[in-house]
Amino acid sequence: MPASRRSDVPGFQVMSVLTRIDQLRAAGRDIVSLTAGEPGSGAPPAVNAAAAEVHSAGTVLNYSPAFGIMPLRRAIAEHYQRWYGCTVEPERVAVTTGSSGAFVLSFLAAFDVGDRVALARPGYPAYRNILSSLGAEVVDLDCGPEVRFQPTVEHLDAEAASRGPLKGLVIASPANPTGTMVDRDQLSALAQWCAENDVQLISDEIYHGITFTHPGVSALEVSDSAVVISSFSKYWGMPGWRLGWTVLPEDLVDPVSRLAGNVALCPPHGSQIAAVQAFTPESLAFAEAQLPHYAEARQLVLDSLETLGWGEAAPADGAFYVYAHMGEHLQRFSDAGTYCTALLEEAGVALVPGTDFDPVNGHHWVRLSLAPGPQAVAEGIRRILQFHGG
Amino acid sequence: MPASRRSDVPGFQVMSVLTRIDQLRAAGRDIVSLTAGEPGSGAPPAVNAAAAEVHSAGTVLNYSPAFGIMPLRRAIAEHYQRWYGCTVEPERVAVTTGSSGAFVLSFLAAFDVGDRVALARPGYPAYRNILSSLGAEVVDLDCGPEVRFQPTVEHLDAEAASRGPLKGLVIASPANPTGTMVDRDQLSALAQWCAENDVQLISDEIYHGITFTHPGVSALEVSDSAVVISSFSKYWGMPGWRLGWTVLPEDLVDPVSRLAGNVALCPPHGSQIAAVQAFTPESLAFAEAQLPHYAEARQLVLDSLETLGWGEAAPADGAFYVYAHMGEHLQRFSDAGTYCTALLEEAGVALVPGTDFDPVNGHHWVRLSLAPGPQAVAEGIRRILQFHGG
Repeated sequence: MPASRRSDVPGFQVMSVLTRIDQLRAAGRDIVSLTAGEPGSGAPPAVNAAAAEVHSAGTVLNYSPAFGIMPLRRAIAEHYQRWYGCTVEPERVAVTTGSSGAFVLSFLAAFDVGDRVALARPGYPAYRNILSSLGAEVVDLDCGPEVRFQPTVEHLDAEAASRGPLKGLVIASPANPTGTMVDRDQLSALAQWCAENDVQLISDEIYHGITFTHPGVSALEVSDSAVVISSFSKYWGMPGWRLGWTVLPEDLVDPVSRLAGNVALCPPHGSQIAAVQAFTPESLAFAEAQLPHYAEARQLVLDSLETLGWGEAAPADGAFYVYAHMGEHLQRFSDAGTYCTALLEEAGVALVPGTDFDPVNGHHWVRLSLAPGPQAVAEGIRRILQFHGG
Repeated sequence: MPASRRSDVPGFQVMSVLTRIDQLRAAGRDIVSLTAGEPGSGAPPAVNAAAAEVHSAGTVLNYSPAFGIMPLRRAIAEHYQRWYGCTVEPERVAVTTGSSGAFVLSFLAAFDVGDRVALARPGYPAYRNILSSLGAEVVDLDCGPEVRFQPTVEHLDAEAASRGPLKGLVIASPANPTGTMVDRDQLSALAQWCAENDVQLISDEIYHGITFTHPGVSALEVSDSAVVISSFSKYWGMPGWRLGWTVLPEDLVDPVSRLAGNVALCPPHGSQIAAVQAFTPESLAFAEAQLPHYAEARQLVLDSLETLGWGEAAPADGAFYVYAHMGEHLQRFSDAGTYCTALLEEAGVALVPGTDFDPVNGHHWVRLSLAPGPQAVAEGIRRILQFHGG
C-alpha cells in the first residue's frame, strides 16, 4: 500500500548525523556532539523528587483532563504574572504533550486545508512539516541577516500583495536555529498587522528564559489574540518528559479542547504532577543556574568565529544555537553537508548542516548547539581549528 | 479570529458527564461512576519501581529516538512472538504517545485529504474525529446486532459499489463501546478484502489481553500489510503514562518515521524506560490478575440485564464495556442522554449515553464500564434497580 502524499515530508539531516554519531561511538571513537538542543542538566531536583514519589507510591495514573491538571495550569498562569506581568486565566492554559502537541493542536484549530501560513526561513523544520502534513500551504518568508532572520511587517505586506491573503503567521523568539529575537516594538507591529489582516499569530516561546542580551517578550504582552506556545523542555531541562503548554485566545479554547480530547486525550499525567514543582523558587534557581554555562559556551563560539574562518553568524540573542555561514570553507567543501560529514568523520565533531532549517540557503550554513556546555564547545572548537589547519 | 472548520468536531458527552460527577462529588454526593475505561489497578509494581528509580537517580531524560528506545521496541516485538506466535522485526515497531499518537501518525501516513476511510458505527469517537480533522472522509458502516457490531466484507462491498472506492478501514477488536470481537476467519476475510482493494487496514488491538470468551487475534497473524495499534493503557493499567505502539508494514516505516520526528519528536522517555518492565513474568501475572475482577463485573451486568429492563446488549467478548439498549426505559425517558442524567442526578450512578459512539442510533443505548470492578458495578446495579422501582 503506498504511503500518503502528505507523509512525504523531508527527513531531518540531523537524524542521519545522530545515527552516524552512534555508529562512530559504538566503534570506539570519541565524538563531541554539538547537535542537539538538549540541556545536560536534567530536571530540577524537586521535579525529579515529585516524580519519584508518584511512582514509589504506586499512584494510579489515569487520564488527566484533556487540558491537564488544574494545579499545573494555575502554576503556569502564575508564571506569566511573575515573569511578564501578564494576567492569564488558568482556563486559557492547555498543558500539552511537549510543544509538539501544542503545535499540532493549534494548527488544527486555527487552519483549514489550503490556508496559507507564513513563517521565517531559516526556521524550525517541524513547523513547516507539520503544517504541510495537515494540508496547510507553507509560505516562506525569506529572512536573512538584513532583518536579523526575523519576519517583518514588510515581508507580510509583500507576500499578501503578491500572492494573496495569509491565514496564519508562526514566529519564534528566540528562534531555532538562529537564536535571534524580536523586540517589543517588532512583536507589537507583527501582532497588530495580524489583527488587522485576520491572521492568526502563533508565537513559539519555548526558549524563553534562555536569553543572553535581553529577556524575551511574550506575545501575551502585546496581543489578546495570539496563541502562545511554550515548554518545559529547554529552560527546565525536561525534553524527554514531553510536557509543554499553550495559552489560547478565548475563541480557540473550546475548539482546541475538543481537538485535544480526540487527538491526544491528555498529556503525560505523572510528568504533570511533577512539573508543578518546576515553579518553586528552588527549581527556578536551578534552571537559572544553567544559564552561565550556555553563556560561556556562546562567548567561546562568538570569540572564535574569525579564527574558525566562518562567515557571518546570526545574532545569538538566546536559545542554544549559533547559526553561522561556512565562510572560507565553501572553497574546500561544496556545501554544509559535505563540510559537516568531514568534521564528523575526520575531526570527531558533530554539527548540523543548515539544510534542515533552510532548504534554499541552508546548504552554506551550519548550526552549533551550545547545550552541551562550555567544555564540550571548547573541545569542539579546538578540534575544528585543528582540522582546518591540518 | 474564527476557529478552523475542521476543529468543529463534536464534544464528547462523556466530558460533560465527568464534569457533572466532579461537581456532585464536590457537593458531597456519593457517586458510582461507571463511565471511564480506566483500570483501577495502576501499573505493574516493577514498572512503577523502574520509573521511581529513573527519577530518584535524577536521570537526564532527553529526547529518545522518534520510534522509541530499542529495548522497548525489542520487548514489544518479543511480545508478539509470545502471545501470537508472530515474528515481528523490532524495526517495524514504533513506540508512540499512547495509542492516540499511533492513530494520528498512521492516519497521516496512510491517508490524504479527501480519502475515504471506513469504520464501524457504533465505534470509538476519536477515530472519526481525528480522521475528519485531518481531512479524510469518514465512511460509516452501520454495524448493528445482526453483525455483532463489527464490519463485514458485505458492508465493504456495498459501500464501494454504491459510493466509490475506499482508501482505509479501521477495525477494533475488542471494540469500544461494544466489546465485541472479530474471529480469525472474519479478520482474515477483512484483511484479504483490503489487500485486494488497495485499502489500508488499521487494526486497533488496545484491549487485547482483556478478553472473556476467547483470546484476541492480531491482524499480524493474517496480514503483512495491516497497521496494528496497541497500548499500555488498558491491559497494563497505564493510561496516564501515555504510551502505546504501532507495528507497521514495511512500506509505512519510513513515512511514519519522518512524520513522528516532526509531529511528536518522541514518546515520553521515562515511561519508555519503565515500560520495558511491563513484559516480565511478574508484570504479566499482575496484569492477568486483574481479569477476574473485570469478568466478575461483566457477569453481574449480564445476569442483571433482564431485571434492569434493558434491551439487547452487545456481546461483551472483551474490553471493559457493556453496551446495552435502553429497552423499556425508552417509554419513560426520551433518549439516553435524559436517562443518564436522571440516573446520575437521582440515583448517583454515572453511565455514558451511546450518542458519543453512534450519532445515528446511539441515543437509545448506554455504555457501562466494568473497569471500576465488581463492587462498584454491583452497587451501581443496585442503585439503578432502586431508581427504576422508585
